[in-house]
Amino acid sequence: MARIAIIGLGYIGGSIGMGLRAAKLRDTEIVGFDDWRSARNAAGKQDAVDKVVGNPREAVDGAGLVILATPPAATSELLEEIAPSLGRGAAVTDTAASKTQIQAWASQHLPTGVSFVGGHPMAGDASAFGIDNASPDLFQGKRWFVSPSPTASDSAVKSVLGMVRELGATPHFLEATEHDYVMAGVSHLPLVVSSALFTMLRSSDGWPDFGRAAGDTFRAMTAFNSGDPSMTTEIAVTNKEQVQHWIDRLVLELSRVRELLDEPEEEVFREYSAAQINHAKFLGGDDLDPDAGAQPDIPDATSQMAALLVSPRLYDKVRTMTKRSEDKEKQRESRSRRWGRG
Amino acid sequence: MARIAIIGLGYIGGSIGMGLRAAKLRDTEIVGFDDWRSARNAAGKQDAVDKVVGNPREAVDGAGLVILATPPAATSELLEEIAPSLGRGAAVTDTAASKTQIQAWASQHLPTGVSFVGGHPMAGDASAFGIDNASPDLFQGKRWFVSPSPTASDSAVKSVLGMVRELGATPHFLEATEHDYVMAGVSHLPLVVSSALFTMLRSSDGWPDFGRAAGDTFRAMTAFNSGDPSMTTEIAVTNKEQVQHWIDRLVLELSRVRELLDEPEEEVFREYSAAQINHAKFLGGDDLDPDAGAQPDIPDATSQMAALLVSPRLYDKVRTMTKRSEDKEKQRESRSRRWGRG
Repeated sequence: MARIAIIGLGYIGGSIGMGLRAAKLRDTEIVGFDDWRSARNAAGKQDAVDKVVGNPREAVDGAGLVILATPPAATSELLEEIAPSLGRGAAVTDTAASKTQIQAWASQHLPTGVSFVGGHPMAGDASAFGIDNASPDLFQGKRWFVSPSPTASDSAVKSVLGMVRELGATPHFLEATEHDYVMAGVSHLPLVVSSALFTMLRSSDGWPDFGRAAGDTFRAMTAFNSGDPSMTTEIAVTNKEQVQHWIDRLVLELSRVRELLDEPEEEVFREYSAAQINHAKFLGGDDLDPDAGAQPDIPDATSQMAALLVSPRLYDKVRTMTKRSEDKEKQRESRSRRWGRG
Repeated sequence: MARIAIIGLGYIGGSIGMGLRAAKLRDTEIVGFDDWRSARNAAGKQDAVDKVVGNPREAVDGAGLVILATPPAATSELLEEIAPSLGRGAAVTDTAASKTQIQAWASQHLPTGVSFVGGHPMAGDASAFGIDNASPDLFQGKRWFVSPSPTASDSAVKSVLGMVRELGATPHFLEATEHDYVMAGVSHLPLVVSSALFTMLRSSDGWPDFGRAAGDTFRAMTAFNSGDPSMTTEIAVTNKEQVQHWIDRLVLELSRVRELLDEPEEEVFREYSAAQINHAKFLGGDDLDPDAGAQPDIPDATSQMAALLVSPRLYDKVRTMTKRSEDKEKQRESRSRRWGRG
């Protein structure tokens, strides 16, 4: 009888248990543990696992695959605690949003012969909590990043890939540092920005005026402040350097935009027009070809025509703007010619 | 027979016409004009106004109330064009997202005896366009900022307030500069940030990796790039100084957050916890009392308890964090005592 252990029976751990049970794996027992008695009781009542045990060492004893679905900050102590009970050849994976620090802890605490293969499912509602919100279908069709540590055995990697596929998700390999760099840009920075936008205005003189005037744009852009602050904290702290890198990059970009606003209107329009076209391509998945160039496209005649579908007024605008640019270009040229003559 | 003129029969102008027609004002004729023949034809077919005319001067001739619902950049020329045809006592209003520059144009072009009363309805989907999307109910229950120019007559202000109320909206007075300051913070800056986030990553090396890894957070935070780029441009250009002010403020806030991440985890948690509590108050409308203080609340015992409803784990976290802070405080005190002795 094979054994899978799940430590942490919340929203993610509970959903993994339910999903694996629904997969009806042959000759496999799914054992679960959670620090919280109420979570253990709920997991038992909801049949999220085959068996709930009273401590993490008992859960991992004899397990071929150990899944850590606890808050990331708790992982170091947890790895230290379970290390003596892990069998040779066991695979340990996790579900945290940052991978580098956890991989370092694993390499520090896990004995030789035990493989760490980091995991990060891209699923779940940021404001959902607890096993009451868990679902066996949570990961269906979702992406699941897999970051094997350099010393992980092939069989451990296969074991984690098998779990991901049984849950209906699609595994994507990404080395831990690369994962954290990418996630800091597309996920952790946006969270930090959502909070910074809200906190900045909330702490401004006359906040009530701002709050009352706030419409859909502000609400949408600050919505992530509703998430669990301990999650945001853990993301920001466990992936600090990368988040700081992207904060610096965004500050540079905002400074560039600040200067752009001093340019003629047609330059500003050209930028926002390019952003709109590129965003439409992104939403359509058109520019995610690995071979595609990374530079933002300046709208050419064809893509401008595409953007015009959005608004007939835009057509007018593009023509006027293009005309103005051309006129200025001509003026510049004729001035150069005059200078050339002089 | 009273006359109301609507210049610009798109999404907003068309909705105003439909809403005023639905209000069945007694002895009032609603006349409309649009630069675009197709918009004029559509307005006629959809009965958005009582009568469509062929040029803006004819529309405003004899009108007691003139509503400009054109792109803001076109307003200066339009005001100049209609000025000679406006009757003494007429009220002119608009629907643009920025008020200061348009008020300046009005003061420059409108003759004595004609009052400008700026307006800004907080309604409508940023990605909706044209009279085909117009609806008589668009403004029902929505806020409508009213910014009378200093020289506007009482009767002109009353006339605009009457229009707002007939459309089912709630008028809120806000002086033009104040309006632009507030809107730059809650609406124009978020738009600019949404675009900056997208453009920054889109122009990064290895964009396809970012695009493929992007989940709900990135999509939500960059969704406003789908809006009409000419709208974003006009907002950014007509309210440039205020938008630049808020960019500077956000850069300061991001720098503060960057430094915060170097602090101990409990400090980071305290900040995100405060943001989450304040955001919940904002969503509940609890902190928008004009007499409320403007400083962000540091979570006290009671509000921490409220936040705990979000997550049982948070309870543990707050207790651990508070304990750590207290322990450090005690260490510091005992060190001071030792120094005091020495």
